[in-house]
This record gives sequence, structure tokens and C-alpha cells, in this order.
Amino acid sequence: MQHDYNKEALELHLKHHGKIEVVAKVPLENRDDLSRAYSPGVGEISKVIAEDVSKSYDLTLKGNTVAIISDGSAILGLGNLGSHAAIPVMEGKAAILKTFAGVDAFPICLDTQDTEEIIKAVKQLAPVFGAINLEDIAAPRCFEIEERLRRELSIPVMHDDQWGTATVVLAGLINALKVTDRTRKDVRIVVNGVGAAGVAISRLLLSYGFSHILFCDSKGIVHSDRTDLTKEKIELLSKSEEKGFEGSLSQAVQGADVFIGVSKAGALTEETARSMNKDAIVFALANPVPEIMPDVAREAGVAVIATGRSDFPNQLNNSLVFPGIFKGMLAKRTAQFTDEVFMKAALALAAHVKNPTRDMVLPTMFDKELVSVIARSVQE
Amino acid sequence: MQHDYNKEALELHLKHHGKIEVVAKVPLENRDDLSRAYSPGVGEISKVIAEDVSKSYDLTLKGNTVAIISDGSAILGLGNLGSHAAIPVMEGKAAILKTFAGVDAFPICLDTQDTEEIIKAVKQLAPVFGAINLEDIAAPRCFEIEERLRRELSIPVMHDDQWGTATVVLAGLINALKVTDRTRKDVRIVVNGVGAAGVAISRLLLSYGFSHILFCDSKGIVHSDRTDLTKEKIELLSKSEEKGFEGSLSQAVQGADVFIGVSKAGALTEETARSMNKDAIVFALANPVPEIMPDVAREAGVAVIATGRSDFPNQLNNSLVFPGIFKGMLAKRTAQFTDEVFMKAALALAAHVKNPTRDMVLPTMFDKELVSVIARSVQE
Repeated sequence: MQHDYNKEALELHLKHHGKIEVVAKVPLENRDDLSRAYSPGVGEISKVIAEDVSKSYDLTLKGNTVAIISDGSAILGLGNLGSHAAIPVMEGKAAILKTFAGVDAFPICLDTQDTEEIIKAVKQLAPVFGAINLEDIAAPRCFEIEERLRRELSIPVMHDDQWGTATVVLAGLINALKVTDRTRKDVRIVVNGVGAAGVAISRLLLSYGFSHILFCDSKGIVHSDRTDLTKEKIELLSKSEEKGFEGSLSQAVQGADVFIGVSKAGALTEETARSMNKDAIVFALANPVPEIMPDVAREAGVAVIATGRSDFPNQLNNSLVFPGIFKGMLAKRTAQFTDEVFMKAALALAAHVKNPTRDMVLPTMFDKELVSVIARSVQE
Repeated sequence: MQHDYNKEALELHLKHHGKIEVVAKVPLENRDDLSRAYSPGVGEISKVIAEDVSKSYDLTLKGNTVAIISDGSAILGLGNLGSHAAIPVMEGKAAILKTFAGVDAFPICLDTQDTEEIIKAVKQLAPVFGAINLEDIAAPRCFEIEERLRRELSIPVMHDDQWGTATVVLAGLINALKVTDRTRKDVRIVVNGVGAAGVAISRLLLSYGFSHILFCDSKGIVHSDRTDLTKEKIELLSKSEEKGFEGSLSQAVQGADVFIGVSKAGALTEETARSMNKDAIVFALANPVPEIMPDVAREAGVAVIATGRSDFPNQLNNSLVFPGIFKGMLAKRTAQFTDEVFMKAALALAAHVKNPTRDMVLPTMFDKELVSVIARSVQE
């Protein structure tokens, strides 16, 4: 049966009025119950926490609860739709975190898109949470917000559009190299799209040891003669051995081993894909329509084609990572996210597939062991 | 059996790690479920809301969800213990709202005690919520914060320490007058404690038509010659026919019909209680130890003695009101809290007791019809 997911989504959301609810996990059936859970007994809990704030991890929801925070400025592939339009997406992530990882999460959609105001608001509402998941916040604002919050808060902070995606891409790439008999030294990579996801993917690939990466944006190849580069692009360029040259995406892709697209529908033509190295690897992650459709890529001789979509093989989606990585970080309490955390998670995710194939470089998010494999890897 | 609620509360909170959890109310068992609840279907929900923000009430958790917001500056009777120490209290309220009224609520404990910063933070996080419950915020800051938020937000805002308490007190007083054969014109009332609760109680009693109210604070009777009065005290004084005179609480109480204490343990001595009018009414609401113990009050000839405690008859606690009043206001969506709302709720609460007695002026919060009676009254 062909699904009309738009229609079915509307029906589902109207029927349930959203996707999460907040329920009591203690009985409140009589006066004794209330005296323990609320007044007067709760006063003792407040006093214990006032004396030692770290006790809030064990005595309240804090230790298992993530804030999913958006300003609505970059919702999915839809753009700046505002704070209210962000609610269903954040609520969906909260539903996934609980269902797949047993982690409590609550959506906070901020009615401001000012960098400093977002930073201040998140710091002010942090006490009740054990971790912060930034989501659907536009670049370049997202970089500053994440960096500052990591420095200024004692709880872990991760912008999932950046690092969830980057972790999945690195894991997928490790296994794609395996199934195409490559080692990391050989490969030349083109990253198309240098926004939130593109920057994080590139950073993580460079940290992992890939050194030949060409970056492309809407103006073509990122190279050092350009005067319009953001500080993130300048930093990436300085770390890659491919210093770039003036040219178009199609020129960059010629002879490349790997194309990673976090850009837009149709950005990779069949002809350009055909110009890639033998047994090429293409991650076409634009949503909902990828840079190149899988059948077209195959036709062009691509060996491994992955997209962000659930209706093709090789779905690379940050849902593979964020439930497990938050579960693991909550267990570590005040540790902060670092490149090393994402690296460990990516290696664990890749290694979890014992025999990767061209059509299955990574597991699906319905893999029963996935969450605990990733959670354990970041806890180590 | 004698309970040690402090010990039992600690055991309960340690065992469950808090009192609420966030759960998915839609299935997420396969790709189709995810395609409806999350990507790609959720994009349609975001687009619909971006076009008409009011649709967020039906399509997300917003329509049934309350933020319970504190700055930790006036936690229970314990004082300024900070934002983390506020979490267990706010979490307890969330558990009560869901269990008793089916309303979803989430605790937000702000890491700031600055009036303007609190106002700004609440406005910024408002999109995901259908109503705001301010809680345990110290006076006089609480007055400004509530007033401003009511004016500047389109969702209902209520400081429960003020209005939940005031509504219960008015309801209790209506029935206490009935069982002692008084009418509202006759009675002379002393309100002891002119903080958050005392101010709201006094305002609501004046609105209802009680005109003979004397206010007392830690310096004694509030009267117009004093130069240390807050604007709230000046306003209350201007509305009462008792303009006050220099003197102590015990002088104020002599011959009074009603004593309402929102002050501190032991504030009303047996001797002072004995000086009240025949068949006096005493609401001794200091927590956990009331202004006068019930057996002492009885001994002094008091006809109706109520406290905030669950282990004596006549518990006057805002838990009687806040679940129903938020349920009713969520149903009205963008209506704002007003004195009239609290008046309606108080009248409904009082009328719900068909035959009040000296030992039962109000129902308990376990009364099965209570929430819907109050919710209906504010919806009218």
C-alpha cells in the first residue's frame, strides 16, 4: 500500500493532540501518598538538595531528563518556521528518546532567535535537566550557541543536527570503505553543503584521520582565494590536505571516492556521479528528496548509496545515534560532549554490523541492541 | 501507625528518581509509525502550524500542558533554597495535575531570581505551553512577574501561592460563615501575614464584599501612619473600611470574628484566640506548623479551625483548586486569569459541600467530582 504520510500524520496528531504526555510514576491515591510525594515530605527532599545540589540527580527527574531545545529557525528541511512550528518535531524526538532509550525528554521551543538570548534562556532553564539537545537551530548561530553552552554549563550539550548526523556519517563511511575495499588514507571525499551538518561531518571526518576532503557550498568549491568564507570554512580548509581550487561541484566530484551531500534535492546529477572513481560511495542526505535518487546513482555505477529516507536501503539518520548517546551521557552526568565521544559512538555503531554489505552499511534504529551498544561506548 | 514522612519521602524519591516521566502516547514500533509521528510526516504538521499558530493547540501537547515555574526563592515554608531545591516540589505539582485532572505539566526551575530575567525567560519558553503556573516565587517580585506576564502573554498565568490559596480561603470562609450563622456584612477579619498569599487572600475577600479587614505583618497592624508600607499594603488599606490603628496583632484580634494566618508557627496564642468574638473562625495556614494548633484553638472556644495540614480536619490547601482551575482554563485556551475566575471557582468549591459542618467546611482533594466542578465553573 502506498502511504500518504502527510495525511496520516495529520490524522495521528489530531487524534492524540501531540505525541507525549507527562505521567506520575508514584502513587497518589491517599493522604499518605501525598504526604510522601508532596507536602510535607517533599520539604525534606528540597532541604537535602539545597545542601548538596548533586543529589538532584537521584532525587528528581533531572538525572534521566533531556531538554530538546529549538528556536524554530531551521526546521527539518523546511527553514525558519518559528517556535510553534518546531513543537511537533521536538515532541517527536522526545517520544523516540523514551520509546527507544527509556530517556525522559521535554520540548522547549524558544520564542527568540537571538544568539545571546538563546544562550541565556538555556542556562536559566538548565537546572531541571541532565542534558541539552539543541535541535533545528540555523547555522552559523548554532555553532556559537553550542560552544558557549558547553563551556558555561555543567551538563552535556549537543546540537544533534551537527553531531548526530556526523556520527552516523562517520560510522556509515567506515563500513562503506570496508565493503568497497578502501582504507581511510586512499580516499578523496567531497562534502557538499557546509552548514550545521556539513561542518560537523567534516570536523569529525578530519578528526578521524581523513585528510583529503574538498568542501563545496552554493558558490562551488571552498578555496583559500575566496573572500566570502565563514570562520568555520576557513578552519576546515586549514585542516584538509585538499586546499581547494576554483571550480564547480561537478569539477570537485570528478575522480572522488566519496560524495557526502547535506545540501539539496538534485545537487548530484547522474553525469557527475558517473565521473567519480570506481565503486564510488554516495551519501545523499538532503531531506525529503536526496541529492540523487538511489536508482539513478546505481545506474551511474555508484557502489554504496545511502540517503536520509526510510523507504530506501541504507538510511543514515541521526535517530540511529541520539537515543543511545544521550542515554550514555546521562549516565556519566557532568561529562561534556567532545569529538572523542562522537568518535567512540561512530566506531561502536560501525562495529555493531558484523558483516556490512552494500545495501546495509548500518543497522536500523529497530535493532534491539543498538541503544545499549552506543550508550556503553560513550560511557567507557 | 505513626509515619516519619521525611524518611518515607526520601525512600520514595530515591527509589523512583523523582515523580514524573515523559512517555510517548503514539506507537513507534515500525517505519510507518515513525513516518507519521516523525520524519517525513511531521514536516506537514510543522507547515500547518507555521500557517496558523493556533493549530498548535490541537496538533501538539500545548493544548493540555502547563509549565510549573519557580525561581526557588520561596520554597514551601523553607525560604530561598535555590532552583535545584525547587525541582521536587514542582515535580510533585506536575504529578498531582496529571493524576487528579489529566493535565500534563512540566517543572521549569529557573536559575535566576531577577524579576526582569524571569519575565523574559517565561515569555521565551511559553510557546510549548497552554498555561503558566508560577510557584514558590518570593514577594514582592511575584506580584510584578504575574501582572506583567498576564499582560504580555496570550496564555493564562497564575501564581498558585497567591490565587490557589486565596480561592480555597474564600471558599472555606463562605462555608465557615454558614456553619456559624454569619453573613458577610457582619464579620470583622484579621489577616496576619501580608506576603504573596496574604495579599491575594485580602484582595479576593475585598472583591467578594468583605469590607472589615485588618491587616497585620511582622510589625503589627498595618495602618496609614506607617512609612514602611509596600504598594500592595497601601492598596489593601485603601479598600478596607478598617483603616487600622497602631497596635499589635493581639490588639487587632480582640473581638474579631475571623483570623486568617499565613504567617508563622505560634503566631496566635491561646489567650489571643480566646479574646476573639464568640464562635470564632481561625484559618491557621502556616506550614508545616500552624499559627495555633487545632486542640488549643478549640480549647480557646474557636468554632471552626482549619490548617494547611492533612493530618487535621479542615485542610485548606491549594491542591483543592489548582488541578481543576488549570483544567478549566486550558479548555478556554487564551482566556486570562482574573479575580472573577477565582471567585467563580471559590463559589463552586463552597457550594460543592451540600452540608458543611464545623469539621468539614470543604471537601478533600480525593472528592471524585471536585476537579470537574471547579473546571466547569471557570469555563462558564
